[in-house]
Amino acid sequence: MDTPDVGGLQRVTIAPSQQQGDQLHLSDAQIHYLGRVLRLQPGESFIAMDGQGTWWLATWQGNAIAHIAHEILATTELPIPLVLMVAMPKGNGMDEIIRQTTELGVAEIWPVMSDRTLLQPSPNKLGRWQRIATEAAEQSERQRVPKLYPPRPWPAALEALQMATHDSSESKERAIAAFLCTARQGVLLRDSLSQVLSQSGSPTQIVVATGPEGGWTDAEVEQAIAHSFTAVSLGRRILRAITAPIAATTLIAHHLEASQAMSR
Amino acid sequence: MDTPDVGGLQRVTIAPSQQQGDQLHLSDAQIHYLGRVLRLQPGESFIAMDGQGTWWLATWQGNAIAHIAHEILATTELPIPLVLMVAMPKGNGMDEIIRQTTELGVAEIWPVMSDRTLLQPSPNKLGRWQRIATEAAEQSERQRVPKLYPPRPWPAALEALQMATHDSSESKERAIAAFLCTARQGVLLRDSLSQVLSQSGSPTQIVVATGPEGGWTDAEVEQAIAHSFTAVSLGRRILRAITAPIAATTLIAHHLEASQAMSR
Repeated sequence: MDTPDVGGLQRVTIAPSQQQGDQLHLSDAQIHYLGRVLRLQPGESFIAMDGQGTWWLATWQGNAIAHIAHEILATTELPIPLVLMVAMPKGNGMDEIIRQTTELGVAEIWPVMSDRTLLQPSPNKLGRWQRIATEAAEQSERQRVPKLYPPRPWPAALEALQMATHDSSESKERAIAAFLCTARQGVLLRDSLSQVLSQSGSPTQIVVATGPEGGWTDAEVEQAIAHSFTAVSLGRRILRAITAPIAATTLIAHHLEASQAMSR
Repeated sequence: MDTPDVGGLQRVTIAPSQQQGDQLHLSDAQIHYLGRVLRLQPGESFIAMDGQGTWWLATWQGNAIAHIAHEILATTELPIPLVLMVAMPKGNGMDEIIRQTTELGVAEIWPVMSDRTLLQPSPNKLGRWQRIATEAAEQSERQRVPKLYPPRPWPAALEALQMATHDSSESKERAIAAFLCTARQGVLLRDSLSQVLSQSGSPTQIVVATGPEGGWTDAEVEQAIAHSFTAVSLGRRILRAITAPIAATTLIAHHLEASQAMSR
Protein backbone atom coordinates (compact mmCIF):
# COMPACT_ATOMS: atom_id res chain seq x y z
CA MET A 1 0.00 0.00 0.00
CA ASP A 2 1.51 3.33 -0.99
CA THR A 3 1.31 6.33 1.27
CA PRO A 4 -1.03 8.83 -0.42
CA ASP A 5 0.45 12.23 -1.21
CA VAL A 6 -0.68 14.19 1.83
CA GLY A 7 2.87 15.16 2.74
CA GLY A 8 2.25 18.88 2.55
CA LEU A 9 -0.63 18.92 5.05
CA GLN A 10 -0.29 19.82 8.72
CA ARG A 11 -1.14 17.31 11.44
CA VAL A 12 -3.19 17.75 14.59
CA THR A 13 -3.71 15.03 17.20
CA ILE A 14 -7.24 14.79 18.61
CA ALA A 15 -8.70 12.80 21.51
CA PRO A 16 -11.25 10.05 20.72
CA SER A 17 -13.92 12.05 22.62
CA GLN A 18 -13.53 14.88 20.08
CA GLN A 19 -14.88 12.78 17.23
CA GLN A 20 -18.64 12.40 16.66
CA GLY A 21 -19.50 10.73 13.36
CA ASP A 22 -17.87 12.78 10.62
CA GLN A 23 -17.42 15.83 12.84
CA LEU A 24 -14.44 16.79 14.96
CA HIS A 25 -14.99 19.17 17.88
CA LEU A 26 -11.84 21.21 18.31
CA SER A 27 -10.51 22.66 21.55
CA ASP A 28 -9.69 26.36 21.93
CA ALA A 29 -5.98 25.49 21.78
CA GLN A 30 -6.48 23.56 18.53
CA ILE A 31 -8.53 26.41 16.99
CA HIS A 32 -5.73 28.81 17.92
CA TYR A 33 -3.13 26.43 16.47
CA LEU A 34 -4.97 25.95 13.16
CA GLY A 35 -5.86 29.61 12.66
CA ARG A 36 -3.01 31.55 14.25
CA VAL A 37 -0.02 29.21 14.11
CA LEU A 38 -0.65 27.24 10.92
CA ARG A 39 -2.64 30.19 9.37
CA LEU A 40 -5.21 27.82 7.92
CA GLN A 41 -8.25 29.45 6.27
CA PRO A 42 -11.84 28.18 6.69
CA GLY A 43 -12.41 25.45 4.10
CA GLU A 44 -8.78 24.34 4.07
CA SER A 45 -7.72 20.82 4.98
CA PHE A 46 -5.47 19.23 7.57
CA ILE A 47 -4.79 15.72 8.82
CA ALA A 48 -6.43 14.73 12.10
CA MET A 49 -4.70 11.88 13.93
CA ASP A 50 -6.24 9.97 16.81
CA GLY A 51 -2.79 8.89 18.03
CA GLN A 52 -3.86 5.23 17.78
CA GLY A 53 -3.04 4.69 14.12
CA THR A 54 -5.96 6.34 12.32
CA TRP A 55 -5.60 9.44 10.14
CA TRP A 56 -8.43 11.46 8.61
CA LEU A 57 -8.42 14.13 5.98
CA ALA A 58 -10.42 16.91 7.66
CA THR A 59 -11.71 20.31 6.49
CA TRP A 60 -11.71 23.18 8.96
CA GLN A 61 -14.88 25.29 9.19
CA GLY A 62 -13.04 28.25 10.72
CA ASN A 63 -14.62 27.59 14.12
CA ALA A 64 -14.68 24.67 16.58
CA ILE A 65 -15.89 22.22 13.92
CA ALA A 66 -13.94 20.26 11.30
CA HIS A 67 -15.54 17.81 8.88
CA ILE A 68 -13.96 14.44 8.20
CA ALA A 69 -13.72 13.88 4.44
CA HIS A 70 -12.28 10.37 4.59
CA GLU A 71 -9.79 8.17 6.35
CA ILE A 72 -6.24 8.17 5.03
CA LEU A 73 -4.39 4.89 4.66
CA ALA A 74 -0.79 5.33 5.65
CA THR A 75 2.07 3.10 6.69
CA THR A 76 4.62 5.10 8.60
CA GLU A 77 4.71 2.70 11.56
CA LEU A 78 7.26 -0.07 12.01
CA PRO A 79 6.01 -3.57 11.12
CA ILE A 80 6.72 -4.77 14.71
CA PRO A 81 6.31 -2.53 17.80
CA LEU A 82 9.61 -1.41 19.35
CA VAL A 83 9.77 -0.82 23.11
CA LEU A 84 12.63 1.37 24.36
CA MET A 85 13.73 0.89 27.99
CA VAL A 86 16.04 3.79 28.72
CA ALA A 87 18.04 4.52 31.86
CA MET A 88 17.39 8.23 32.29
CA PRO A 89 20.40 10.49 31.62
CA LYS A 90 21.14 13.62 33.63
CA GLY A 91 19.67 17.02 32.91
CA ASN A 92 17.16 17.39 30.09
CA GLY A 93 18.59 14.49 28.09
CA MET A 94 15.28 12.60 28.16
CA ASP A 95 13.63 15.40 26.14
CA GLU A 96 15.96 14.81 23.21
CA ILE A 97 15.77 11.01 23.53
CA ILE A 98 11.96 11.11 23.43
CA ARG A 99 11.89 13.56 20.52
CA GLN A 100 14.38 11.66 18.38
CA THR A 101 13.30 8.09 19.12
CA THR A 102 9.70 9.11 18.42
CA GLU A 103 10.77 10.39 14.99
CA LEU A 104 12.60 7.11 14.48
CA GLY A 105 9.51 4.99 15.17
CA VAL A 106 9.52 3.75 18.79
CA ALA A 107 6.13 2.45 20.08
CA GLU A 108 6.65 2.67 23.85
CA ILE A 109 9.20 4.42 26.06
CA TRP A 110 9.89 3.03 29.53
CA PRO A 111 12.09 5.41 31.55
CA VAL A 112 14.21 3.38 33.95
CA MET A 113 16.06 4.17 37.20
CA SER A 114 19.25 2.11 37.30
CA ASP A 115 21.91 1.99 40.03
CA ARG A 116 23.91 4.75 38.34
CA THR A 117 20.95 6.93 37.34
CA LEU A 118 21.31 10.38 38.88
CA LEU A 119 18.08 11.97 37.66
CA GLN A 120 15.14 12.18 40.07
CA PRO A 121 12.40 13.34 37.70
CA SER A 122 9.66 15.51 39.17
CA PRO A 123 6.10 14.13 38.85
CA ASN A 124 5.14 16.72 36.22
CA LYS A 125 7.89 15.45 33.90
CA LEU A 126 5.70 12.69 32.50
CA GLY A 127 3.15 15.17 31.13
CA ARG A 128 5.94 17.19 29.51
CA TRP A 129 7.48 14.05 28.01
CA GLN A 130 4.12 12.93 26.60
CA ARG A 131 3.64 16.36 24.98
CA ILE A 132 7.10 16.11 23.38
CA ALA A 133 6.22 12.64 22.03
CA THR A 134 2.91 13.92 20.63
CA GLU A 135 4.57 16.87 18.86
CA ALA A 136 7.35 14.69 17.47
CA ALA A 137 4.81 12.11 16.21
CA GLU A 138 2.93 14.86 14.35
CA GLN A 139 6.07 16.39 12.84
CA SER A 140 7.52 13.06 11.74
CA GLU A 141 4.14 12.04 10.23
CA ARG A 142 3.64 9.02 12.42
CA GLN A 143 0.27 7.35 12.81
CA ARG A 144 0.72 6.52 16.50
CA VAL A 145 1.93 8.56 19.42
CA PRO A 146 4.40 6.54 21.52
CA LYS A 147 3.17 5.62 24.98
CA LEU A 148 5.27 6.87 27.88
CA TYR A 149 5.36 5.00 31.17
CA PRO A 150 6.26 6.44 34.58
CA PRO A 151 9.89 5.85 35.63
CA ARG A 152 10.48 2.51 37.34
CA PRO A 153 13.54 0.90 38.96
CA TRP A 154 15.30 -1.54 36.63
CA PRO A 155 14.20 -4.75 38.45
CA ALA A 156 10.57 -3.55 38.50
CA ALA A 157 10.75 -2.70 34.79
CA LEU A 158 12.08 -6.18 34.02
CA GLU A 159 9.26 -7.73 36.04
CA ALA A 160 6.67 -5.58 34.26
CA LEU A 161 8.09 -6.66 30.92
CA GLN A 162 7.85 -10.30 31.91
CA MET A 163 4.22 -9.80 32.96
CA ALA A 164 3.46 -8.09 29.65
CA THR A 165 4.89 -10.98 27.66
CA HIS A 166 2.34 -13.40 29.11
CA ASP A 167 -0.90 -13.43 27.20
CA SER A 168 -3.17 -14.36 30.11
CA SER A 169 -6.17 -15.26 27.95
CA GLU A 170 -4.32 -18.06 26.21
CA SER A 171 -1.60 -18.58 28.83
CA LYS A 172 1.10 -18.72 26.25
CA GLU A 173 4.08 -16.41 25.89
CA ARG A 174 4.31 -13.79 23.19
CA ALA A 175 7.56 -13.95 21.30
CA ILE A 176 9.65 -10.95 22.35
CA ALA A 177 13.21 -10.29 21.25
CA ALA A 178 15.02 -8.24 23.92
CA PHE A 179 18.43 -6.57 23.54
CA LEU A 180 20.59 -4.92 26.21
CA CYS A 181 23.08 -2.40 24.82
CA THR A 182 26.40 -2.58 26.64
CA ALA A 183 29.79 -0.95 26.09
CA ARG A 184 32.69 -3.17 25.05
CA GLN A 185 30.82 -6.48 25.06
CA GLY A 186 28.37 -8.46 22.99
CA VAL A 187 27.97 -8.98 19.26
CA LEU A 188 26.95 -6.04 17.10
CA LEU A 189 23.22 -5.28 17.45
CA ARG A 190 22.89 -5.66 13.69
CA ASP A 191 24.20 -9.23 13.67
CA SER A 192 22.05 -10.20 16.63
CA LEU A 193 18.97 -8.73 14.91
CA SER A 194 19.69 -10.64 11.69
CA GLN A 195 19.90 -13.86 13.63
CA VAL A 196 16.72 -13.33 15.65
CA LEU A 197 14.61 -12.08 12.74
CA SER A 198 15.70 -14.91 10.43
CA GLN A 199 14.60 -17.53 12.94
CA SER A 200 11.24 -19.14 12.49
CA GLY A 201 8.62 -17.83 14.90
CA SER A 202 9.49 -14.16 14.33
CA PRO A 203 9.01 -11.94 17.37
CA THR A 204 5.81 -9.93 17.78
CA GLN A 205 7.66 -7.21 19.66
CA ILE A 206 11.23 -5.96 20.01
CA VAL A 207 12.63 -4.50 23.22
CA VAL A 208 15.90 -2.60 23.50
CA ALA A 209 17.44 -1.23 26.71
CA THR A 210 20.20 1.39 27.00
CA GLY A 211 22.17 2.32 30.10
CA PRO A 212 22.97 5.47 32.09
CA GLU A 213 26.16 7.53 32.25
CA GLY A 214 28.74 5.08 33.57
CA GLY A 215 26.86 2.10 32.12
CA TRP A 216 24.91 -0.76 33.61
CA THR A 217 26.34 -2.49 36.70
CA ASP A 218 27.37 -6.14 36.35
CA ALA A 219 24.37 -7.09 38.48
CA GLU A 220 22.00 -5.22 36.18
CA VAL A 221 23.44 -6.96 33.12
CA GLU A 222 22.95 -10.32 34.84
CA GLN A 223 19.36 -9.46 35.78
CA ALA A 224 18.63 -8.62 32.16
CA ILE A 225 20.21 -11.81 30.85
CA ALA A 226 18.15 -13.77 33.40
CA HIS A 227 15.10 -12.11 31.78
CA SER A 228 16.16 -13.39 28.32
CA PHE A 229 17.92 -10.24 27.13
CA THR A 230 20.81 -10.58 24.67
CA ALA A 231 23.80 -8.31 25.37
CA VAL A 232 24.72 -6.39 22.22
CA SER A 233 27.20 -3.73 21.12
CA LEU A 234 26.48 -0.50 19.24
CA GLY A 235 30.06 -0.35 17.91
CA ARG A 236 33.61 0.23 19.13
CA ARG A 237 33.19 3.73 20.46
CA ILE A 238 31.66 4.70 23.79
CA LEU A 239 28.30 6.40 23.22
CA ARG A 240 26.78 8.83 25.71
CA ALA A 241 23.55 7.90 27.48
CA ILE A 242 21.71 10.28 25.12
CA THR A 243 23.21 8.91 21.92
CA ALA A 244 22.86 5.17 22.62
CA PRO A 245 19.02 4.98 22.55
CA ILE A 246 18.92 7.05 19.35
CA ALA A 247 21.49 4.81 17.65
CA ALA A 248 19.76 1.62 18.84
CA THR A 249 16.35 2.83 17.64
CA THR A 250 17.80 3.87 14.27
CA LEU A 251 19.37 0.44 13.70
CA ILE A 252 16.30 -1.56 14.71
CA ALA A 253 13.83 0.59 12.75
CA HIS A 254 15.94 0.45 9.61
CA HIS A 255 16.46 -3.29 9.99
CA LEU A 256 12.72 -3.93 10.37
CA GLU A 257 11.82 -1.80 7.35
CA ALA A 258 14.53 -3.42 5.22
CA SER A 259 13.32 -6.89 6.27
CA GLN A 260 9.74 -5.94 5.44
CA ALA A 261 10.75 -4.67 2.01
CA MET A 262 12.53 -7.96 1.34
CA SER A 263 9.58 -10.13 2.35
CA ARG A 264 7.08 -8.36 0.07
CA MET B 1 43.98 -6.76 17.16
CA ASP B 2 42.11 -6.44 20.44
CA THR B 3 41.74 -3.12 22.17
CA PRO B 4 43.83 -3.29 25.36
CA ASP B 5 41.96 -2.77 28.60
CA VAL B 6 42.58 0.93 29.17
CA GLY B 7 38.88 1.72 29.30
CA GLY B 8 38.96 3.18 32.79
CA LEU B 9 41.60 5.81 31.98
CA GLN B 10 40.84 9.44 31.15
CA ARG B 11 41.83 10.93 27.81
CA VAL B 12 43.54 14.22 27.03
CA THR B 13 44.24 15.50 23.53
CA ILE B 14 47.64 17.11 23.05
CA ALA B 15 49.14 19.07 20.15
CA PRO B 16 52.12 17.53 18.27
CA SER B 17 54.30 20.42 19.49
CA GLN B 18 53.73 19.30 23.09
CA GLN B 19 55.59 16.03 22.58
CA GLN B 20 59.39 15.86 22.84
CA GLY B 21 60.73 12.31 22.87
CA ASP B 22 59.04 10.48 25.73
CA GLN B 23 57.98 13.70 27.46
CA LEU B 24 54.73 15.62 27.11
CA HIS B 25 54.72 19.33 28.01
CA LEU B 26 51.28 20.16 29.36
CA SER B 27 49.50 23.51 29.12
CA ASP B 28 48.13 25.29 32.19
CA ALA B 29 44.61 24.29 31.13
CA GLN B 30 45.64 20.64 30.85
CA ILE B 31 47.36 20.72 34.26
CA HIS B 32 44.18 22.20 35.74
CA TYR B 33 42.07 19.56 33.98
CA LEU B 34 44.20 16.62 35.16
CA GLY B 35 44.59 17.82 38.76
CA ARG B 36 41.37 19.69 39.50
CA VAL B 37 38.77 18.18 37.19
CA LEU B 38 39.94 14.57 36.90
CA ARG B 39 41.59 14.69 40.38
CA LEU B 40 44.59 12.74 39.14
CA GLN B 41 47.46 12.34 41.62
CA PRO B 42 51.16 12.65 40.66
CA GLY B 43 52.33 9.26 39.39
CA GLU B 44 48.91 8.28 38.05
CA SER B 45 48.30 7.48 34.40
CA PHE B 46 46.12 8.85 31.64
CA ILE B 47 45.86 8.39 27.88
CA ALA B 48 47.36 11.14 25.73
CA MET B 49 45.90 11.36 22.22
CA ASP B 50 47.47 13.34 19.40
CA GLY B 51 44.12 13.52 17.59
CA GLN B 52 45.70 11.89 14.52
CA GLY B 53 45.26 8.27 15.55
CA THR B 54 48.05 7.74 18.08
CA TRP B 55 47.44 7.05 21.77
CA TRP B 56 50.09 6.92 24.48
CA LEU B 57 49.89 5.66 28.04
CA ALA B 58 51.34 8.60 30.00
CA THR B 59 52.18 9.16 33.67
CA TRP B 60 51.59 12.58 35.17
CA GLN B 61 54.38 14.09 37.28
CA GLY B 62 52.01 16.46 39.07
CA ASN B 63 53.40 19.44 37.16
CA ALA B 64 53.72 20.42 33.49
CA ILE B 65 55.46 17.17 32.56
CA ALA B 66 54.03 13.75 31.75
CA HIS B 67 56.14 10.75 30.75
CA ILE B 68 55.12 8.50 27.89
CA ALA B 69 55.26 4.86 28.99
CA HIS B 70 54.35 3.34 25.63
CA GLU B 71 52.05 3.68 22.65
CA ILE B 72 48.66 2.03 22.90
CA LEU B 73 47.32 0.09 19.94
CA ALA B 74 43.62 0.68 19.58
CA THR B 75 41.03 0.28 16.86
CA THR B 76 38.08 2.50 17.58
CA GLU B 77 38.06 4.12 14.14
CA LEU B 78 35.86 3.06 11.25
CA PRO B 79 37.62 0.93 8.59
CA ILE B 80 36.79 3.56 5.90
CA PRO B 81 36.65 7.33 6.59
CA LEU B 82 33.12 8.76 6.67
CA VAL B 83 32.57 12.37 5.56
CA LEU B 84 29.37 14.05 6.74
CA MET B 85 28.05 16.96 4.65
CA VAL B 86 25.34 18.53 6.75
CA ALA B 87 23.01 21.41 5.89
CA MET B 88 23.12 23.44 9.09
CA PRO B 89 19.91 23.39 11.16
CA LYS B 90 18.61 26.42 13.05
CA GLY B 91 19.67 27.39 16.53
CA ASN B 92 22.34 25.34 18.28
CA GLY B 93 21.47 22.14 16.42
CA MET B 94 24.97 21.84 14.97
CA ASP B 95 26.40 21.41 18.49
CA GLU B 96 24.40 18.22 19.03
CA ILE B 97 25.08 16.94 15.51
CA ILE B 98 28.84 17.39 15.95
CA ARG B 99 28.83 15.81 19.42
CA GLN B 100 26.78 12.77 18.43
CA THR B 101 28.25 12.07 14.99
CA THR B 102 31.75 12.33 16.51
CA GLU B 103 30.79 9.66 19.05
CA LEU B 104 29.45 7.58 16.17
CA GLY B 105 32.72 7.72 14.23
CA VAL B 106 32.59 10.44 11.56
CA ALA B 107 36.00 11.49 10.11
CA GLU B 108 35.13 14.90 8.63
CA ILE B 109 32.21 17.29 9.03
CA TRP B 110 31.44 19.73 6.23
CA PRO B 111 28.78 22.27 7.31
CA VAL B 112 26.76 23.29 4.27
CA MET B 113 24.57 26.29 3.42
CA SER B 114 21.67 25.10 1.27
CA ASP B 115 18.84 27.16 -0.22
CA ARG B 116 16.64 26.57 2.81
CA THR B 117 19.37 26.96 5.44
CA LEU B 118 18.45 29.76 7.83
CA LEU B 119 21.53 29.74 10.07
CA GLN B 120 24.21 32.37 9.46
CA PRO B 121 26.96 31.08 11.74
CA SER B 122 29.26 33.67 13.29
CA PRO B 123 32.99 33.25 12.48
CA ASN B 124 33.78 32.11 16.04
CA LYS B 125 31.43 29.14 15.67
CA LEU B 126 34.06 27.01 13.97
CA GLY B 127 36.37 27.15 17.00
CA ARG B 128 33.49 26.20 19.28
CA TRP B 129 32.51 23.31 16.99
CA GLN B 130 36.08 22.01 16.85
CA ARG B 131 36.25 22.06 20.69
CA ILE B 132 32.99 20.07 20.87
CA ALA B 133 34.40 17.52 18.41
CA THR B 134 37.63 17.22 20.44
CA GLU B 135 35.74 16.66 23.71
CA ALA B 136 33.39 14.13 22.12
CA ALA B 137 36.35 12.25 20.57
CA GLU B 138 37.98 11.98 24.00
CA GLN B 139 34.80 10.85 25.75
CA SER B 140 33.90 8.28 23.13
CA GLU B 141 37.49 6.93 23.16
CA ARG B 142 38.21 7.70 19.54
CA GLN B 143 41.73 7.77 18.15
CA ARG B 144 41.10 10.68 15.77
CA VAL B 145 39.39 14.00 16.23
CA PRO B 146 37.05 14.73 13.30
CA LYS B 147 38.10 17.60 11.08
CA LEU B 148 35.62 20.46 10.77
CA TYR B 149 35.51 22.61 7.66
CA PRO B 150 34.16 26.18 7.41
CA PRO B 151 30.56 26.39 6.14
CA ARG B 152 30.27 26.46 2.33
CA PRO B 153 27.33 26.84 -0.06
CA TRP B 154 26.10 23.48 -1.39
CA PRO B 155 27.45 23.91 -4.96
CA ALA B 156 30.89 24.94 -3.60
CA ALA B 157 30.91 21.95 -1.25
CA LEU B 158 30.10 19.61 -4.15
CA GLU B 159 32.93 21.15 -6.19
CA ALA B 160 35.34 20.78 -3.28
CA LEU B 161 34.35 17.14 -2.91
CA GLN B 162 34.98 16.55 -6.59
CA MET B 163 38.42 18.18 -6.30
CA ALA B 164 39.22 16.01 -3.27
CA THR B 165 38.35 12.82 -5.13
CA HIS B 166 41.05 13.44 -7.74
CA ASP B 167 44.41 12.16 -6.68
CA SER B 168 46.52 14.68 -8.59
CA SER B 169 49.79 12.75 -8.21
CA GLU B 170 48.46 9.76 -10.12
CA SER B 171 45.65 11.52 -11.97
CA LYS B 172 43.18 8.79 -11.17
CA GLU B 173 40.00 9.06 -9.18
CA ARG B 174 39.66 7.70 -5.68
CA ALA B 175 36.61 5.50 -5.27
CA ILE B 176 34.07 7.44 -3.21
CA ALA B 177 30.57 6.26 -2.43
CA ALA B 178 28.28 9.28 -1.89
CA PHE B 179 24.73 9.21 -0.52
CA LEU B 180 22.16 12.01 -0.36
CA CYS B 181 19.48 11.51 2.30
CA THR B 182 16.08 12.64 1.08
CA ALA B 183 12.56 12.39 2.50
CA ARG B 184 10.06 10.14 0.73
CA GLN B 185 12.34 9.00 -2.08
CA GLY B 186 15.19 6.64 -2.79
CA VAL B 187 15.97 3.13 -1.62
CA LEU B 188 16.77 2.54 2.04
CA LEU B 189 20.32 3.66 2.89
CA ARG B 190 21.00 0.16 4.20
CA ASP B 191 20.18 -1.52 0.91
CA SER B 192 22.19 1.01 -1.08
CA LEU B 193 25.18 0.48 1.24
CA SER B 194 24.97 -3.30 0.87
CA GLN B 195 25.03 -2.95 -2.89
CA VAL B 196 27.93 -0.49 -3.01
CA LEU B 197 30.08 -2.31 -0.46
CA SER B 198 29.57 -5.71 -2.09
CA GLN B 199 30.78 -4.41 -5.45
CA SER B 200 34.35 -5.05 -6.43
CA GLY B 201 36.58 -2.01 -6.06
CA SER B 202 35.29 -1.09 -2.60
CA PRO B 203 35.25 2.64 -1.88
CA THR B 204 38.12 4.27 0.00
CA GLN B 205 35.77 6.86 1.48
CA ILE B 206 32.06 7.23 2.15
CA VAL B 207 30.22 10.56 1.96
CA VAL B 208 26.72 11.18 3.28
CA ALA B 209 24.76 14.44 3.00
CA THR B 210 21.67 15.43 5.00
CA GLY B 211 19.36 18.36 4.33
CA PRO B 212 17.99 21.35 6.24
CA GLU B 213 14.54 21.97 7.75
CA GLY B 214 12.21 21.77 4.75
CA GLY B 215 14.57 19.46 2.87
CA TRP B 216 16.76 19.86 -0.18
CA THR B 217 15.31 21.72 -3.18
CA ASP B 218 14.81 19.74 -6.37
CA ALA B 219 17.71 21.65 -7.93
CA GLU B 220 20.00 20.67 -5.05
CA VAL B 221 19.05 17.01 -5.40
CA GLU B 222 19.83 17.21 -9.13
CA GLN B 223 23.20 18.87 -8.47
CA ALA B 224 24.10 16.06 -6.08
CA ILE B 225 23.06 13.34 -8.52
CA ALA B 226 25.15 15.06 -11.21
CA HIS B 227 28.07 14.70 -8.77
CA SER B 228 27.48 10.92 -8.51
CA PHE B 229 25.42 10.95 -5.30
CA THR B 230 22.82 8.23 -4.80
CA ALA B 231 19.51 9.43 -3.30
CA VAL B 232 18.60 7.28 -0.29
CA SER B 233 15.89 7.11 2.35
CA LEU B 234 16.34 6.84 6.13
CA GLY B 235 12.88 5.26 6.54
CA ARG B 236 9.21 6.13 6.26
CA ARG B 237 9.04 8.85 8.86
CA ILE B 238 10.17 12.46 8.44
CA LEU B 239 13.32 13.09 10.47
CA ARG B 240 14.29 16.55 11.70
CA ALA B 241 17.47 18.16 10.35
CA ILE B 242 19.17 17.29 13.67
CA THR B 243 18.13 13.63 13.70
CA ALA B 244 18.90 12.73 10.06
CA PRO B 245 22.73 13.10 10.25
CA ILE B 246 22.82 11.11 13.50
CA ALA B 247 20.71 8.32 12.00
CA ALA B 248 22.73 8.26 8.77
CA THR B 249 26.05 8.13 10.65
CA THR B 250 24.75 5.35 12.92
CA LEU B 251 23.69 3.21 9.96
CA ILE B 252 26.91 3.67 7.99
CA ALA B 253 29.23 3.14 10.98
CA HIS B 254 27.41 -0.03 12.03
CA HIS B 255 27.36 -1.32 8.47
CA LEU B 256 31.10 -0.76 8.03
CA GLU B 257 31.96 -2.46 11.32
CA ALA B 258 29.66 -5.40 10.56
CA SER B 259 31.24 -5.76 7.08
CA GLN B 260 34.71 -5.63 8.59
CA ALA B 261 33.82 -8.31 11.14
CA MET B 262 32.51 -10.53 8.33
CA SER B 263 35.62 -10.15 6.18
CA ARG B 264 38.02 -11.17 8.95
